[in-house]
Amino acid sequence: MKIAALVFDDLTALDLFGPLEVLGGLPNAEFVFVTPDESITAERTGIKIDVTAALDEVDSADILLVPGGQGTRRLIKHEPTLEWVRKIDQTTTWTTSVCTGSLVLAAAGLLNGRPATTHWMAYDLLEKLGAQPTSERVVFSDKYVTAAGVSSGIDMALRLAQEIYGDDLAQSIQLFIEYDPQPPFDSGSPEKADPDIVRLVRAAQVARTRSK
Amino acid sequence: MKIAALVFDDLTALDLFGPLEVLGGLPNAEFVFVTPDESITAERTGIKIDVTAALDEVDSADILLVPGGQGTRRLIKHEPTLEWVRKIDQTTTWTTSVCTGSLVLAAAGLLNGRPATTHWMAYDLLEKLGAQPTSERVVFSDKYVTAAGVSSGIDMALRLAQEIYGDDLAQSIQLFIEYDPQPPFDSGSPEKADPDIVRLVRAAQVARTRSK
Repeated sequence: MKIAALVFDDLTALDLFGPLEVLGGLPNAEFVFVTPDESITAERTGIKIDVTAALDEVDSADILLVPGGQGTRRLIKHEPTLEWVRKIDQTTTWTTSVCTGSLVLAAAGLLNGRPATTHWMAYDLLEKLGAQPTSERVVFSDKYVTAAGVSSGIDMALRLAQEIYGDDLAQSIQLFIEYDPQPPFDSGSPEKADPDIVRLVRAAQVARTRSK
Repeated sequence: MKIAALVFDDLTALDLFGPLEVLGGLPNAEFVFVTPDESITAERTGIKIDVTAALDEVDSADILLVPGGQGTRRLIKHEPTLEWVRKIDQTTTWTTSVCTGSLVLAAAGLLNGRPATTHWMAYDLLEKLGAQPTSERVVFSDKYVTAAGVSSGIDMALRLAQEIYGDDLAQSIQLFIEYDPQPPFDSGSPEKADPDIVRLVRAAQVARTRSK
């Protein structure tokens, strides 16, 4: 079970490490981290990830995982990355994304006309790139599996583990990572959060994007 | 707001990146990643984290965060690391851990007689190190905040954000990371999971520890 993760400068670390921790529980999981970039610093926290595989060093995978982050806005215009994503996709059993990682899949032409999801602030862009955005947390469309914002990658990967290996293994992984979520508020989606909080987050995001 | 994370070889990546992604939403959050090790490879996934600060380069923090992982079994006997943890603790407003990170806090003598938590498979060891294990997901004991296994760091950090900056900011962060968990099963704690699944996970852990 070869799992290739596309990693890049300005990625959102939790988009990547949520699913990795789950998929790390699959039997014989073998990971390869592939990047078009010289160095990778996660957004917000500044932690550096050390990756050695370049795009031309990996040409197949059982699962492709594309996390999100501000860096995706660059990648959706970066033809060598999109070309690599298309090439790997031809070899995968599952092609997956978390958060704005789906923008990269869409820009590569893989989500044309398909239901898919992304971070709730990126539905418009996902639609422009040819997919049909939905607000579900995890969307399966044939072999294409897209997850909503950031933390949803954990749910996505558990669903994937269930599809591939069945309920017992998925439940074992959930227990191992003690995924018994107890968020202090019910504020995790724009439908559930207070409208003032939704406005606050949108405004902060606009400010953040403009400052880059 | 200076946040120092102790990182080490054989850490569990999600223990670290769950809380980091939340704490990255605090105003003026500034991160420093500190290690006693030459290189850091996360357990299970093999991803490498590139960290430059050594123990003697950091001598204070507002928040100390210690993630868990198999590497903690080494650190609880590594006096220079424990010494550093004690030194930083004298400067912190909050001293925190996720999963078996609490073993390191306990080995440093910081949790003596305090209620605290850890991964459910490590309660015994936490008790041997002087703390009073509880099965709560997040435990506050004065400035010491310990979280249960792996994914619980997200809940812990949201509770911490709430304590420090109030409900609005914590809710905004929760919405930004779209933390509206929808696990496919209710299998995230040993009390909730099927007993067969609990046995399966314990057996796998024993096999894994013995193979090291």
